[in-house]
Amino acid sequence: MENKFAKWGLKGQKEATVTIRDILETIKKQVKKDDEKPMIHLGHGDPSAYSCFRTTPVAEEAVNRALRSAKFNGYAPAAGLPESRRAVAEFLSKDLPYKLSEEDIFITAGAAHAIELILTVLARPGANILLPRPGYPSYEAHSTFLDQEVRNFDLLPEKGWEIDLDGVEALADDNTVAMVVINPGNPSGSVFTPEHLQKIAETAKRLGIVLISDEVYYDLVFGGNKFVPMGVFGSVTPVVSLGTMSKRWLVPGWRLGWIALSDPNGILKRTGITDCIKKYRNISPDSTTLIQGAIPEILEKTPKDFISNIVVLLREAAEACYSNIIEIPYLDSPQKPEGAMSTMVKLNLDMLEGIEDDMDFCLRLAKEESVLVLPGSVLGLKNWLRISFATDVASLEEGLQRIKAFCLRHSNMIM
Amino acid sequence: MENKFAKWGLKGQKEATVTIRDILETIKKQVKKDDEKPMIHLGHGDPSAYSCFRTTPVAEEAVNRALRSAKFNGYAPAAGLPESRRAVAEFLSKDLPYKLSEEDIFITAGAAHAIELILTVLARPGANILLPRPGYPSYEAHSTFLDQEVRNFDLLPEKGWEIDLDGVEALADDNTVAMVVINPGNPSGSVFTPEHLQKIAETAKRLGIVLISDEVYYDLVFGGNKFVPMGVFGSVTPVVSLGTMSKRWLVPGWRLGWIALSDPNGILKRTGITDCIKKYRNISPDSTTLIQGAIPEILEKTPKDFISNIVVLLREAAEACYSNIIEIPYLDSPQKPEGAMSTMVKLNLDMLEGIEDDMDFCLRLAKEESVLVLPGSVLGLKNWLRISFATDVASLEEGLQRIKAFCLRHSNMIM
Ligand SMILES: Cc1ncc(COP(=O)(O)O)c(C=O)c1O
Ligand SMILES: Cc1ncc(COP(=O)(O)O)c(C=O)c1O
Repeated sequence: MENKFAKWGLKGQKEATVTIRDILETIKKQVKKDDEKPMIHLGHGDPSAYSCFRTTPVAEEAVNRALRSAKFNGYAPAAGLPESRRAVAEFLSKDLPYKLSEEDIFITAGAAHAIELILTVLARPGANILLPRPGYPSYEAHSTFLDQEVRNFDLLPEKGWEIDLDGVEALADDNTVAMVVINPGNPSGSVFTPEHLQKIAETAKRLGIVLISDEVYYDLVFGGNKFVPMGVFGSVTPVVSLGTMSKRWLVPGWRLGWIALSDPNGILKRTGITDCIKKYRNISPDSTTLIQGAIPEILEKTPKDFISNIVVLLREAAEACYSNIIEIPYLDSPQKPEGAMSTMVKLNLDMLEGIEDDMDFCLRLAKEESVLVLPGSVLGLKNWLRISFATDVASLEEGLQRIKAFCLRHSNMIM
Repeated sequence: MENKFAKWGLKGQKEATVTIRDILETIKKQVKKDDEKPMIHLGHGDPSAYSCFRTTPVAEEAVNRALRSAKFNGYAPAAGLPESRRAVAEFLSKDLPYKLSEEDIFITAGAAHAIELILTVLARPGANILLPRPGYPSYEAHSTFLDQEVRNFDLLPEKGWEIDLDGVEALADDNTVAMVVINPGNPSGSVFTPEHLQKIAETAKRLGIVLISDEVYYDLVFGGNKFVPMGVFGSVTPVVSLGTMSKRWLVPGWRLGWIALSDPNGILKRTGITDCIKKYRNISPDSTTLIQGAIPEILEKTPKDFISNIVVLLREAAEACYSNIIEIPYLDSPQKPEGAMSTMVKLNLDMLEGIEDDMDFCLRLAKEESVLVLPGSVLGLKNWLRISFATDVASLEEGLQRIKAFCLRHSNMIM
């Protein structure tokens, strides 16, 4: 067997896939075990470990009821339980100018799985896909794995991280299948205006490409702009939206997400894309039936103040984050975050002695201060950092103070 | 967009994938809604709808505790929670001559997902894989999707569905990457002897291919042969075993399975296969953290009599199934099932008037008698049927009586 497999070697593409999880694992290894300082994790968008970010009792109760009923122990249909698909369709329809139906929803094992599904379905030999920079690395990992060329368009920090749409037009060609938009933005923390969303939809239409709208941070906005789902512009161009319980209900471990097709003109159907999703969904992993069984009750009964409380917490955290960052001259923050759970800051390496780059910064910071942040190079922006603020404010401020102390210690400036 | 996608068309491979779920959906459509006879489902291996096949309170309690603790709402590491991997390793080690460690276990979203993972990792341009006939269609669906050639070896009904190992040797060549063994057998209901398992391992070793052992029906045996995991022969050749909570705990909807690497000589590691699994696991969907959190308690505390009771129920069902079938001259049953949840019977089409083939039989049976069984052609054996007996005995006997009535009605024999 060893001879045989030595002949083949590993599939190269399988080595090229880097995930946030990978990088954070590497960085975390630097944290000293016997440190007096407890580790502060500003590296990922999972606040569920903090008691202030516990999910609503409604969700726990719904899962408990599903469990006790013993009605959701069996296999579900591949696309999801009909009542769960219907519940998601109704939930999303509230914010749309037309109604989605059960048939427009495919339940997935989280949005991460929704990304895999839609990219696999759209993959074609020689095709390329347009991804935002900075972006979310799963898209690139799956595209690489599927042998699809990735072309990055820029998000413009000086314009509130709006998409450089001229850049998009310049990148696209006959082999472009899709573009990905993440709104509210991870990693940018931006929230797009309806005007910008409409322009994006018109660009996708002009280019004849599928518009994938990652709305994992649905409703989690706390700045000037309201959240508007891309599906509002579904009559301009069909929209494939990706959603999840992970962030809005603070339960990323439950692994329930969805693909929603906002396609009032039936274009995805006619091109065969809908059918392809159905077929591939059939052989792709299922989301737990238990959580599927709970979802109608969760969507119906979650009190409005649960989400408004999360928004209050995130706003406080975002503000604490921003006000601490702007006091650190070694970091530049182009914009106060207005949504989602993270923000991008630029490293002023000129002012730091002997720090090579963003990765080096993160590794040393973990080692010296037991603080985890994500190097921007993983997201396509070298020498930036992504700081997640989905923590309680005390930990966040402590973490940022440690970052400041770290910078001062490595400063080459006379203060 | 329509022009663009019309140019590409659908990826052919995505259309070629047929699953049991698909076929059963098609057959189910024949069942009359207003029928007085309630539908009897002898088509799939999911007994969880019957109250006698309810999971153990220990499992429900463990999930409830995980839920209430709020400790399992967050993302888990890609390979699974360390304590869950450790618990599975300990559970499997009890039946092995050496100990598995946490590092040998990868948690998956059910064995269906484990199949996808291992086949994806082993896929190479121009490679082929050896699959049993009759088999479990997921293997073929994923192989086709991955552009891997499928070569079928026979299970021999006259030899208790043992593998035709000469056939295996004749099929394999330099491009063969793996062979799949399903024991206890779906669809055959057979349980292999240790002697046969050893010969299989020696064959895989001689051919230099990876031995994939699907042990989804772990411990569910009720005939003469004890269940022996293939990992027992891990020192002959490395074994990749696929396991799940689905059948043994009667909770297929919970979606927790695993890949276990029984590789005491470190061959999978040296060939890079272990590393490849780790890497691909990273971008593949996760199993719910909630159930992962419950698994240590479930494995530790499930009482012995829970599993022995299931075995008693399955034995009764298997016997009722067999004794009813042998009284139907239109069906030939080569062997009384000894494990798992189904059996294969041959259709004597000569004795039936105007029934074209197995699919025709199943469609008409659903329409006329509201009974679902699976056509053997889906599993590679045309004009056979797979009958699942994972139901309560009353439903099973009623279902078989209806099959008998159906055959008599379509008989061309003078009785
Ligand atoms: C932009 C974006 N897309 C997708 C995901 C995956 O979400 P899920 O937890 O539903 O898999 C995340 C998670 O952080 C995300 O930030
Ligand atoms: C032989 C075999 N392998 C794999 C599976 C998939 O099992 P799971 O429910 O863990 O995905 C099944 C389910 O019926 C099966 O019969």
